[in-house]
Formats: sequence, C-alpha cells, structure tokens
Amino acid sequence: MNEALAEIGQLIARYGPLADAGDAAGAASLWTEDGVYAVGGMAEARGRAAIAGLLQGPEHQALLAAGCAHILSAPAVALAADGVSAVAVNHSIVLRRDESGGYAIHRVAANRWELISTADGWRIRRRDNCLLDGTAEARALLALG
Amino acid sequence: MNEALAEIGQLIARYGPLADAGDAAGAASLWTEDGVYAVGGMAEARGRAAIAGLLQGPEHQALLAAGCAHILSAPAVALAADGVSAVAVNHSIVLRRDESGGYAIHRVAANRWELISTADGWRIRRRDNCLLDGTAEARALLALG
Amino acid sequence: MNEALAEIGQLIARYGPLADAGDAAGAASLWTEDGVYAVGGMAEARGRAAIAGLLQGPEHQALLAAGCAHILSAPAVALAADGVSAVAVNHSIVLRRDESGGYAIHRVAANRWELISTADGWRIRRRDNCLLDGTAEARALLALG
Repeated sequence: MNEALAEIGQLIARYGPLADAGDAAGAASLWTEDGVYAVGGMAEARGRAAIAGLLQGPEHQALLAAGCAHILSAPAVALAADGVSAVAVNHSIVLRRDESGGYAIHRVAANRWELISTADGWRIRRRDNCLLDGTAEARALLALG
Repeated sequence: MNEALAEIGQLIARYGPLADAGDAAGAASLWTEDGVYAVGGMAEARGRAAIAGLLQGPEHQALLAAGCAHILSAPAVALAADGVSAVAVNHSIVLRRDESGGYAIHRVAANRWELISTADGWRIRRRDNCLLDGTAEARALLALG
Repeated sequence: MNEALAEIGQLIARYGPLADAGDAAGAASLWTEDGVYAVGGMAEARGRAAIAGLLQGPEHQALLAAGCAHILSAPAVALAADGVSAVAVNHSIVLRRDESGGYAIHRVAANRWELISTADGWRIRRRDNCLLDGTAEARALLALG
C-alpha cells in the first residue's frame, strides 16, 4: 500500500513544477496516452498531445510570462481493491503575479484524479478540475467515496 | 515508521476535501469518538457530534455557499517511542470566493495534531488551530518538540 | 526508495513550521553543517550559523511580529542512483498579516533542494529559492531533470 501511495503522491507532486517550468510535454506524460484532463468550464483535453496543447495555449503562456505558481495540496488517496487503480482528491490554486509585483489568487479548484498503475508506473487516467465557486458540482468532486 | 507516517499523512490530507465537500460526519470521523477540535478564539468542540456541529454551523455553511478551500500543508510528524501516538504540525489556510468571483485569504492558522493509533487506524485525539497573528501562542503551536 | 522519500518529505515539511515558530537554530539544522541557502536577489547564506542568521535578521523577524506563514508544497523528488543524494523541487509561499487583520501574499517562489543522506539522516546541502516573476531563471529552477 505504501509503495502505491508514495508513487501517486510523487506523480501528483510533479504536475505543478512541470506546469510552472513550462514543460508541456513533461506534464502531459503524467497522464496515460489516452488520458483526459477536464477543466470545468474551460476545456476537456483527451490524449497527451491535447493536454500538452492546453499548456502551450495562450492562457497558460500568459500566466508563465507574468509569473505564476500552480500549487497542489497533498492528495487524499483511495486505492481500489484491485491494487492497480486509485482515486485521489485535492485542491489546486494558481497564483499570478500582477503588474505591481504583488501576487493575486487567480484560481482555486477542486481536483479528482483517476489513476492507474501501468508498466511505466502510476499514471493519470482522468483529472477533473472544477472551480470552487459554491456549487454542488465542485463540492461533489472532493468526495473520495 | 513509514507505514505510520503514510497513514497520518493520509488522515490529515482528508480533512480539507471532507470540509469543502460539506461532509461534516466524514470529517468528524477523522477524530476519536471523544476527540477535541479547539479553534483558537472561536470554539472548542469535544466529541464527533460537536465537531460535526462546527461544520454544520452557520460560519462553515456560509463559506461553503460562497465557495471555499480549506488547504492544509503536508504535516511534519513526530512519532512517539510507543509507536501508537504522534504529534504533527502544519499550516492551514482558508480561501473564500467573494462577490466579484475572485478569492480572498480568509484565515491562516497554525495547527498541532495529537494522534493515536486505534483499531480503526490512526485518528485525531486533539487538533489545536490558532490564527497566525504574530502572537507567541500561535508560534509556539508550531514547535514539534 | 520509500524510506528515503518519506524522510525527505519530512525534512522539507519541517522548514515552514520551524521558520514560523521562530526556531532559527532548528531550521538551520535541516541543512548540513556547510549547507547553502540561496535566496534569489536577497542573500546567500553558507553554513548553519549564516542560515540561522537569516531567520534572526530584521526581515524575518518583522514577518514573525506581523504574523506570517511559510507554506511549502509537497516536493517532487528525484533520487540519484547512488541512493544517498537527491534533488527535490517545490513551491513556497509566504503569507503576511496586515494591519487590518487580513492576509496578503508576500512572496511566491520556486525551490530546488539538493539533498544528501548523512549519519544523522537526510539533510539539505543546498536550497535555491527564486521568486516566480516570469523569468526563465525561476522557471528553470523547477525542472527536476
């Protein structure tokens, strides 16, 4: 159990640094080849090329140019009985530097991760990210079940 | 050692998602039956029903309705020599959506967790939460000893 | 592998609570005797006494007096093949209480940690901290390689 928990923790811990390093291909490689990254109200990217495309797109590039931090909290993980799949939930925040040199909170979201153990290690099969805006939908995403 | 660290990390990682999912009973079940949640200057809840009551109360419900995130940092943990008790310290922040759709920092606090290994796994015996307001009391809470 | 990951996670998790508890010597002891803490654009402290000196200096003391939180995200860790050295990357944010009792984002930075296993456990050989201000230098610090 520990081994899977540690690997899943590391997998998710890599997303923020890769996103803020501007390594779109590296971030996309955290997903399975046909993995999905669904960003509520913005986009649903399917497959590594599409996920990398999100990070190469104008919105993420503008964040990088301004100065940004994609910070993810340590996930709560539920391993399935099969030992090769898991669900995790956590928070993500995006901080963005403004013109005055200060930082503002750009986005605060709930995340649900469907994970699978592959020959190359644990990968993300699907990540749902939903703005924590008071709606039941966002709150439901954080239920680990 | 690793097993206890991993379980304690998971226990504390569950609080934020449960609080923001609005699952008061689930959050309270992280404590022992007679556990204590002391929120400096606000409340001291004793027992699971009282802890659930805090999350069902008007203040937490207003946060949920507005859109909020209870984000806890990964804890530093000191396992006792007995192997069945531990103390952990970390930070918690609460972000709250405002009327304009932006997010503000609602609360920044120090946390000290007294933990115990039970037949059902590790549980919280006592959580002290104290606003980081420059007082010696809040700073002392972060000393792991 | 898990043992090293858990110990490195704990090492880095201790920095924030020690810094905010005002325990300068405790924070400095996370480094090796001749360890380096390089804060981009501010200071480069070499050795435990110099690192403790940073935390005893006027800038950190002013933060403590106001009320502050040094929050570090869970690190992504790359263990070297030798088993006794590692590199980790993560984010750090500093929140600061203002006169009105609210909190502002004081600093958002990228961190790169060079770590080594010693007779006393894992210690920091070098920590680079660089403001995430949109420059390539800060982004490069987050590449785990």
